[in-house]
Amino acid sequence: MALLERHDTGAVARLTLNNPDKLNPLSDAMLAALQDEFDRLAGDTSIRAITLGGAGKVFCAGHDLKEMTAGRQAEDGGKAYFKDLFDRCARMMMTIQKLPQPVIAQPHGIATAAGCQLVAACDMAVAAEGTRFGVNGVNIGLFCSTPMVALSRNIPRKQAFEMLTTGQFINAEKAEALGLVNKVVPHDDLDAATLELAELVASKLGAAVKIGKEAFYNQIQMPVAEAYDYAGDVMAQNMLYRDTEEGISAFLEKRPPDWDQ
Amino acid sequence: MALLERHDTGAVARLTLNNPDKLNPLSDAMLAALQDEFDRLAGDTSIRAITLGGAGKVFCAGHDLKEMTAGRQAEDGGKAYFKDLFDRCARMMMTIQKLPQPVIAQPHGIATAAGCQLVAACDMAVAAEGTRFGVNGVNIGLFCSTPMVALSRNIPRKQAFEMLTTGQFINAEKAEALGLVNKVVPHDDLDAATLELAELVASKLGAAVKIGKEAFYNQIQMPVAEAYDYAGDVMAQNMLYRDTEEGISAFLEKRPPDWDQ
Amino acid sequence: MALLERHDTGAVARLTLNNPDKLNPLSDAMLAALQDEFDRLAGDTSIRAITLGGAGKVFCAGHDLKEMTAGRQAEDGGKAYFKDLFDRCARMMMTIQKLPQPVIAQPHGIATAAGCQLVAACDMAVAAEGTRFGVNGVNIGLFCSTPMVALSRNIPRKQAFEMLTTGQFINAEKAEALGLVNKVVPHDDLDAATLELAELVASKLGAAVKIGKEAFYNQIQMPVAEAYDYAGDVMAQNMLYRDTEEGISAFLEKRPPDWDQ
Repeated sequence: MALLERHDTGAVARLTLNNPDKLNPLSDAMLAALQDEFDRLAGDTSIRAITLGGAGKVFCAGHDLKEMTAGRQAEDGGKAYFKDLFDRCARMMMTIQKLPQPVIAQPHGIATAAGCQLVAACDMAVAAEGTRFGVNGVNIGLFCSTPMVALSRNIPRKQAFEMLTTGQFINAEKAEALGLVNKVVPHDDLDAATLELAELVASKLGAAVKIGKEAFYNQIQMPVAEAYDYAGDVMAQNMLYRDTEEGISAFLEKRPPDWDQ
Repeated sequence: MALLERHDTGAVARLTLNNPDKLNPLSDAMLAALQDEFDRLAGDTSIRAITLGGAGKVFCAGHDLKEMTAGRQAEDGGKAYFKDLFDRCARMMMTIQKLPQPVIAQPHGIATAAGCQLVAACDMAVAAEGTRFGVNGVNIGLFCSTPMVALSRNIPRKQAFEMLTTGQFINAEKAEALGLVNKVVPHDDLDAATLELAELVASKLGAAVKIGKEAFYNQIQMPVAEAYDYAGDVMAQNMLYRDTEEGISAFLEKRPPDWDQ
Repeated sequence: MALLERHDTGAVARLTLNNPDKLNPLSDAMLAALQDEFDRLAGDTSIRAITLGGAGKVFCAGHDLKEMTAGRQAEDGGKAYFKDLFDRCARMMMTIQKLPQPVIAQPHGIATAAGCQLVAACDMAVAAEGTRFGVNGVNIGLFCSTPMVALSRNIPRKQAFEMLTTGQFINAEKAEALGLVNKVVPHDDLDAATLELAELVASKLGAAVKIGKEAFYNQIQMPVAEAYDYAGDVMAQNMLYRDTEEGISAFLEKRPPDWDQ
């Protein structure tokens, strides 16, 4: 069994963290597997949406603390290894945003520390009822500083601060109310509901979703006037796609579009 | 009948998009009418609040796709026209923020694409029950990149991403929960409820609302320390207004203020 | 009785605004007392959480309008005094963010204008049922421009704009739903619930909370790639704390940590 499973359903690539005995930790090997798979998917225009789940009882319990502890044996006490680890982890999280395809997390059980970060870093998330979310590194003296980057860009400030400094979990309903997940479904429906959302996104014009996703994360960091100027360029470019011309014509003529994609 | 109707009620200017047969599209002519009216209102100190609704069954269904399609006949396939169109549209949306008066959208029926952007770009919004909001250009291969600029500054990130990539509508209650509208009222109460909010705002000291609205959008884009420095200047300046001195004196003396405004 | 009371409970410093007859205004003297106490607490490693409440019927009703009015007697009509006042107030609010310890507001009754700002500027807040929050300076012609800086970084844009331009109050449940407070409890439980949250935070490794809180407010203002780079450094540094090594070892060995703190 691979550490990271991939099963495609049509234009949807379904990834599964597959180290259930260890609660699917973001070990060195898992980070590499995710990075490799995402790099591969970045160039695969036949895939138009990606889902990411976890095998076994939980989605992901964060970093591999045993592996991290072993890193302390280096001459510098692990300093270089830790920095490199967090850099690799951040690079993988940023790769999710940079992928042309939307990535949908499908957490269940628990999503803690870097596992909660992974949910926050995905473009969307569908959670199973009963899922608990936490950035609880503070409980062991390790503040979840990198998970905080993604979390504080998903939910309001005071609620993020509380999670980070108390280490307490929030449930799936609270996660939805705060904005960390898009919807909550019964556990038995998690696969189907996530696939349904992925297939809906995959049914859209891939080129439009690609240019739009890239623009989403670019413009959100700009002052509003600059964002409008940039987004206007993006949208004018989008108008010139042959498939977009066909999409608009089809709409005006009340028929389905005949897309090349 | 004018394309954009205006009826004033005291210090409130009530604007109505008035092309109901076409679902009040933001055509070249409508964009120009809005820009002209807003430019006129910018210098009119007798008006202290503005409302913006739509005639007929819906608030606004976005750009005029037939007009845009006609633009493809140009030698460059429409490239220059499209860029100019999105620039004019963005300029009109930014004008709303720059107006000294608060602008309240009052959507009903549907508010889609640039129509949803118009709601997001207004300072506040009161929605009729049953209103559906969407940035559904993706359905025809045209990602709502410019509507995204306003939308992603109103609602949480994952929820905005979902609307943009699925093209699905949200209802008025969801729009309120996410922050896209301030309140939802029965359709028959929409005019009255919006006017009530506008009149409440119009009853305040116009000079204070003007300086405050400008500061609101300026400071929100600054780092917090810079924002405090700037806002402190604004507030010190506000303290020196004669009407503010009178307002504070009246409050301390438990009597209504006698304002020049 | 001191203007600002302090009673410590273990590692929690409990501060109380103590000028109930005047509704605990942020007068010159109160601002100085808060600044002095926060400056003292900044260097006190025995204190790991701070709570801030108000004596009497309300939490805080904002600035001292009588004192401000008296400031108009200066030759410049108060211009220099007002700017200095808002600078001192902003400095105190920013000091809360810069403190190594989390600061929890515990509003009850009313929190208006700079009193609402104080709630927004704290890291977390527990509110008593029945508390009303407002930035109602606009009612007397003085737009709450400095409170807006903190408020608009806590709650969504349209809802902040409505509070600022209408002067209307929101209740505690709405404040929680919008993100201004973390939880709402019966009035009689306010002290206990706030202390419980403070003690939970104080039970964590102080050095981790300190480095995490600082990173929280730093990274939130950065573009995401820069934020990850910075947070990765912070987390690698955190890994090298002896107490963090012990915390992780204890977790892996399923025993309580033996921390030096």
